[in-house]
Amino acid sequence: MGGIVVIGGGTGSFTVLKGLKRYTNNLTAVVSMFDSGGSTGILRDELGHLPPGDVRRCILALAPEDTHTDVLRDLMSFRFENGKGLSGHSLGNLLLTALKEITKDEVLAIERLSQLLGLKGRVLPVTIDNSHLCAVMENGTIVRGETNIDIPDHDPNLKITKLFVDPPAHALIDAIDALKNADKIVIGPGDLYTSIIPNFLVKGIPEAIKESKAKKIYICNVMTKYGETNDYKASTFLKEIEKYLGEKSVDVMICNTELGEETLLKKYSEEKAYPVEIDVENLSHVQLIADDFLNKAEIIRHDSMKLAKTIMNL
Amino acid sequence: MGGIVVIGGGTGSFTVLKGLKRYTNNLTAVVSMFDSGGSTGILRDELGHLPPGDVRRCILALAPEDTHTDVLRDLMSFRFENGKGLSGHSLGNLLLTALKEITKDEVLAIERLSQLLGLKGRVLPVTIDNSHLCAVMENGTIVRGETNIDIPDHDPNLKITKLFVDPPAHALIDAIDALKNADKIVIGPGDLYTSIIPNFLVKGIPEAIKESKAKKIYICNVMTKYGETNDYKASTFLKEIEKYLGEKSVDVMICNTELGEETLLKKYSEEKAYPVEIDVENLSHVQLIADDFLNKAEIIRHDSMKLAKTIMNL
Repeated sequence: MGGIVVIGGGTGSFTVLKGLKRYTNNLTAVVSMFDSGGSTGILRDELGHLPPGDVRRCILALAPEDTHTDVLRDLMSFRFENGKGLSGHSLGNLLLTALKEITKDEVLAIERLSQLLGLKGRVLPVTIDNSHLCAVMENGTIVRGETNIDIPDHDPNLKITKLFVDPPAHALIDAIDALKNADKIVIGPGDLYTSIIPNFLVKGIPEAIKESKAKKIYICNVMTKYGETNDYKASTFLKEIEKYLGEKSVDVMICNTELGEETLLKKYSEEKAYPVEIDVENLSHVQLIADDFLNKAEIIRHDSMKLAKTIMNL
Repeated sequence: MGGIVVIGGGTGSFTVLKGLKRYTNNLTAVVSMFDSGGSTGILRDELGHLPPGDVRRCILALAPEDTHTDVLRDLMSFRFENGKGLSGHSLGNLLLTALKEITKDEVLAIERLSQLLGLKGRVLPVTIDNSHLCAVMENGTIVRGETNIDIPDHDPNLKITKLFVDPPAHALIDAIDALKNADKIVIGPGDLYTSIIPNFLVKGIPEAIKESKAKKIYICNVMTKYGETNDYKASTFLKEIEKYLGEKSVDVMICNTELGEETLLKKYSEEKAYPVEIDVENLSHVQLIADDFLNKAEIIRHDSMKLAKTIMNL
């Protein structure tokens, strides 16, 4: 056992896993299962399956990039753009959904697809309970459904004071085992309230993380997100994590110091997203690794390889 | 080159190919491309692609039955039963459609999927022109679209006097080459007017078959089909084939002598489908192989292995 467990969801997990797979096969992705938008939301609503989107992304991240599976990876990434009922659907989501119907088992479906792609590592849903993410806003209103929190249909200036899942969700036993036996647990990066914390709302997960002797590494976001983490500093992110996992639950925090290009920053500022300020003075209780972790690309995002190298050296 | 070319479409080709693959890898399926119903029809109409259904069936027939590709074969056979836009769609059709969009090439898409499944043999569309099958009925009316001929929206007592495709279709050069260089060409079994003859309406195909030094083997249907081949005897089937391929174009004709179980025959007779009578006296210009080729199952169909053994011995 041992190895590295990455807990999160969405593109953040994708980025970390893509780098880490170059160093080790002993990798497990524990994936948030509360997505309710897009192709995933339709499959969830109409077919009653668990949301496949984040699982698909993690499977793709861990797929070896050899020519043998080129075609399969292309298919996994394909999205239909035309066709009345098909438009918007990711083929990878459809494959997962079909495998779920064939195997009658969420976890087995993921395993089968993973085998097909010769995956380096495992992808585990944090839960197979069909629950929805809910946010309590500071004015007391409740926003229901991940996609409604993520793409706010709420007043974006209101703070999220509490998250919960409804009905309560229980952790997959394999996810608990992986966390308990890990050498390193990597939390994030990813949207704090819609990709990271939802995992900690699942019964058994915070307990497993606390109990684990693993080094716990939190990768803080590069940018704030309007409607979710307005004006958050590095310590605010950490405090939110600790609210669900307990004080001093994080050993190492990775923060990016490099600002993106000015033109890019300007684009982000139009969406009221700004670089996360690293307020070192409030981070004294963690080992802080502040460095350039930026991927120099057309969007502001962590660099897979820089993150992986740093995590491996911890 | 050399080898066996099976020309047809639908479940008939599936049956022959499934048996033949146990004897040889030197197999090519040339597949009719005029299907316009079901999942295939929707993809054809909404996405403007060629019909994937018969190609998918032939790919499945030629896929080796090893455990390594179990999951892929399961996925290829899966059909969505729920979901507003998805219900009725075959996942194999969606895979072919996605590969077409990824590769921008019908033939390459089939090749990629074939490689993925480690196919024994090749599957070739008879044409990549987007044409529709049309039937001229004996009263002069024209029925357009394979599905309308197949599931008759025409008076089922009217004979089909002529078939044509609109616009004219030109054969895939690889299909022409395969036919010209074959050792054996297997025609059928399959619906005469919607699976077999449509191939002969494609420019270049009848010429290639005539020019080929291959032994030409026609597998006659076991049952007549109401609305298409009412009261047809073996010689009527052959005559129709010869109408498009030329006289004496068939060297060997395989006919089934075994009647199905009485209860089964009764079920078929309710749909006005009857065993094809072998009128030996009108078949003197072909080598006739009349034997028990029946698959003893819950439907009346040819037996894959019996057909394959007979073809291999020719």
